Amino acid sequence: MPISRRAFLTTAGKTAFAAYPAMMALGLLRSAPAHAFELSGNGNNKHIIILGAGLAGMTAAYELSKLGYRCTLLEARNRTGGRCWSIRKGAALQETEQPLQTATFDDGLYFNAGPSRIPHHHALTLHYCKELGVPLQVYNNINEAAYYFSEGKGPLSNKKVRIREIHNDLRGYMTEMLAKAIDQHQVDAGLTKEDAQKIIEYLRAEGGLDIDKLYKASSRRGYTAPPGAGAQVGTIADPYRLADIISSGLMDPDFYNVAEYTYELQMTMFQAIGGMDRIAAALEKKVAPMIRLGCKVSAIHNQAEGVRVTYRDKNGEKQLSGDICICTIPLPVLSNIDHNFSSDVSRAIDYIPYMTTGKMGLQFKRRFWEEDEGIYGGITHTNNELTQIFYPSNDYLGKKGILIGYYNFYETAAKVGALSLEQRRQLALEKGGMIHPQYAKEFETGFSIAWHKTPYSLGGWALYNSETRQTFYKALLQPEKQVYFAGEHMTHLNAWMAGAFESARSVVAAVHARVAEQRLAYPPAHATN
Amino acid sequence: MPISRRAFLTTAGKTAFAAYPAMMALGLLRSAPAHAFELSGNGNNKHIIILGAGLAGMTAAYELSKLGYRCTLLEARNRTGGRCWSIRKGAALQETEQPLQTATFDDGLYFNAGPSRIPHHHALTLHYCKELGVPLQVYNNINEAAYYFSEGKGPLSNKKVRIREIHNDLRGYMTEMLAKAIDQHQVDAGLTKEDAQKIIEYLRAEGGLDIDKLYKASSRRGYTAPPGAGAQVGTIADPYRLADIISSGLMDPDFYNVAEYTYELQMTMFQAIGGMDRIAAALEKKVAPMIRLGCKVSAIHNQAEGVRVTYRDKNGEKQLSGDICICTIPLPVLSNIDHNFSSDVSRAIDYIPYMTTGKMGLQFKRRFWEEDEGIYGGITHTNNELTQIFYPSNDYLGKKGILIGYYNFYETAAKVGALSLEQRRQLALEKGGMIHPQYAKEFETGFSIAWHKTPYSLGGWALYNSETRQTFYKALLQPEKQVYFAGEHMTHLNAWMAGAFESARSVVAAVHARVAEQRLAYPPAHATN
Repeated sequence: MPISRRAFLTTAGKTAFAAYPAMMALGLLRSAPAHAFELSGNGNNKHIIILGAGLAGMTAAYELSKLGYRCTLLEARNRTGGRCWSIRKGAALQETEQPLQTATFDDGLYFNAGPSRIPHHHALTLHYCKELGVPLQVYNNINEAAYYFSEGKGPLSNKKVRIREIHNDLRGYMTEMLAKAIDQHQVDAGLTKEDAQKIIEYLRAEGGLDIDKLYKASSRRGYTAPPGAGAQVGTIADPYRLADIISSGLMDPDFYNVAEYTYELQMTMFQAIGGMDRIAAALEKKVAPMIRLGCKVSAIHNQAEGVRVTYRDKNGEKQLSGDICICTIPLPVLSNIDHNFSSDVSRAIDYIPYMTTGKMGLQFKRRFWEEDEGIYGGITHTNNELTQIFYPSNDYLGKKGILIGYYNFYETAAKVGALSLEQRRQLALEKGGMIHPQYAKEFETGFSIAWHKTPYSLGGWALYNSETRQTFYKALLQPEKQVYFAGEHMTHLNAWMAGAFESARSVVAAVHARVAEQRLAYPPAHATN
Repeated sequence: MPISRRAFLTTAGKTAFAAYPAMMALGLLRSAPAHAFELSGNGNNKHIIILGAGLAGMTAAYELSKLGYRCTLLEARNRTGGRCWSIRKGAALQETEQPLQTATFDDGLYFNAGPSRIPHHHALTLHYCKELGVPLQVYNNINEAAYYFSEGKGPLSNKKVRIREIHNDLRGYMTEMLAKAIDQHQVDAGLTKEDAQKIIEYLRAEGGLDIDKLYKASSRRGYTAPPGAGAQVGTIADPYRLADIISSGLMDPDFYNVAEYTYELQMTMFQAIGGMDRIAAALEKKVAPMIRLGCKVSAIHNQAEGVRVTYRDKNGEKQLSGDICICTIPLPVLSNIDHNFSSDVSRAIDYIPYMTTGKMGLQFKRRFWEEDEGIYGGITHTNNELTQIFYPSNDYLGKKGILIGYYNFYETAAKVGALSLEQRRQLALEKGGMIHPQYAKEFETGFSIAWHKTPYSLGGWALYNSETRQTFYKALLQPEKQVYFAGEHMTHLNAWMAGAFESARSVVAAVHARVAEQRLAYPPAHATN
């Protein structure tokens, strides 16, 4: 039975985020190269109020304005970009319960307080970088020259151990165990004799086993003295004992970081040259006339037709009316804003938890991690409050540099975020100095951020589980009358810039489909006919 | 018993390549930052003839001229750099038995015919890039988005399979086998019960095993439909069957490339921005007045004092005399040059084998490997004549690009190198087109090189085994009267630019020590007193 265009769009409109495929089915999407977003039809100057000038809000404004919509972007901060923020000289932050902090880094130095990595398969992020002319460089996420540092645990404790040493030792010991077990017919995996032999050969290559299937350290672990000219053959160290690796906790999830196996963290990764907020800056350039900074929203009210937003700027309280509102405000912030939303939506806003997370950038006089230790990018893992140290993937072989001195989550981030700014700095320097004694001599200045204590963010990103996906998340997928929700929290790409881009497009498609059908009032006019 | 300075230097001089440490012991090396090379004393305008203006020869000239030596560099080609060569528009090559080939790539496009990667621990290469002002960028050597392509073998044959799929499936199946074997007490590795349990937990994380220690495909393998906004959760494919992976040869050394585990190929890797020969060009700038291009050496003769080199340039045969000669000519080329060397040295020159190897650069209208397939850098591995396809690690998201269509070795390179230029091109396009059908539509122009057929190189790099290290190699480590041998073949860093740099420094130190002792004649004057 053929479905009428109206009925189809009504259905599609109800599940707002499904509108993009629906529009493809209806032929509303023009044929276009991959990732281009060319919708047909015109927004006829309909007024869209967008709350939040982060990546999601600015992308929505950018795409809607291409379609003939009139957009107003209200942004509480005095800058755009939201969590897409790079800390340079002069960057200022006043966390809740903290004094004002202003960055005093040298000109040209920065660190990414928010997103710092782009997976190569986040096609929409790459697309916008290309369309907006933001040059990229490789973010070197995987570097086994970095360390594991186990504080106070086992024979390898308080000693920096190269990741490559542990990784090769574990690969060696595990393949040795398996190769021997297969050889002694102790593995029941239904293998033919030939396959068993092939697997043993593979395991020997994989683990670097000798002819007797024994693991011996090789140059895969690096050299104690490198090979060179003449008689300089290069020497290697003995492997660590498996029992020592285990009892030092280096097989625990703290260290043995399978994170690098996740699809999102596999190489190739990218970053914007000069700081990730170059992406936000490029978007801002496209929508600058639509942006009103320093506008703190206090209420969002659906009307019989359209929506009314109340906000306060330096001149006092104001109201703004529009046909549609796209709200990209992070949920912990939105939770403190007055609204007339349904109870399901209100509950979702109040109860979806956000990640507790903090980062600290530390500027050093020289790049000792490169000069002294041969570490170019990558991540050191610890079992203490630092959790991780990130080495910069830019300006290699340069003079100075900024490390991410810690990047932590959950309880650790809550604990560190509760410290004073000075205490955080002391912690980063003291614990980091156990790994890099050069800290003491080379440190210049630092800047810390606890995202859960940062106004207008109040968290790192939305945290879902399978239950909240079915309840809270679903409630927000529907437009709340004239209000649509967008941002990384409205996707399965949480914490990634790709979430902001994908969500913005999805909402733009849904809004555009609705406007095409002139269903601006709620319930839709045609449904009451 | 104290050793006299003369006796010490005499000993050190005999094992020329040990001179650098010897000079450190004598205090002839100034205290300097890591990798700086500051020798004391003056060369007093002694004349050093350097044969070959590749990296080793130019580095030797650069360092010797800093010390007050007069250097003359004789180079057979009409360009410097030797194997450090990037193919751009206009690059010309006439291999033995081939017509002249001239590159017709677009302006700004290139590929590195020789060295294309710098390991992060090749400190001297990084040092010279920094000292000479050659900017670097990350070379993305590890990219599991690239493919394995098994031609004509097993159920997965003639199908491009993402490396990440095979890697995760193998990691999954292997850890599953081992976790079960340990759980069923079938592994006798002297593990305590607690350690066995810890290892099982580690294996579950490492392989992505479920609670029952079974491997199930996860998003680590990538998605068939990516996660996105709204209800778009992302879907994943089933793993390949282990038996299929085995019978398709994907566990064979052809594919399952443990090469990436070798220390030299671990991330972080670098390349010179704009082409690796920017390093040669920067060196050339430093020693340009000393270089004579187009000078084909025909004889090297030690004299009672000094050395005499015979060469031919466009004006005919000439002779040049010097106090010392540093010969960086690759051995297969040197083997055809007349000399009065000892029989041990002569034999070494004649018998040390060099790698047979070839590369082909293919220019395409668009970067379909990025746009269509999400491959940014990295290497596809095949079991056919291509062996490897390298995707460029520069100008990501650009318009056009050059792939390395094949990079092969040994018999495969010999076979492909024996083809006509047109046949090589056809082979690269036909076999590559099985993996990337876009080849047919997007190909523009190509350029191939067989290093073993390239005059003045006649091979990729020196190939040693433990026996030839003890015999031939050792014979060349001694100076042959006034002639010193330098280049990657005089190191344990074969095939790497670092070999050229390390070798040059080692020889410069040896020459400088000898000159300091005024032992220019052979046998040394003081030995006959």
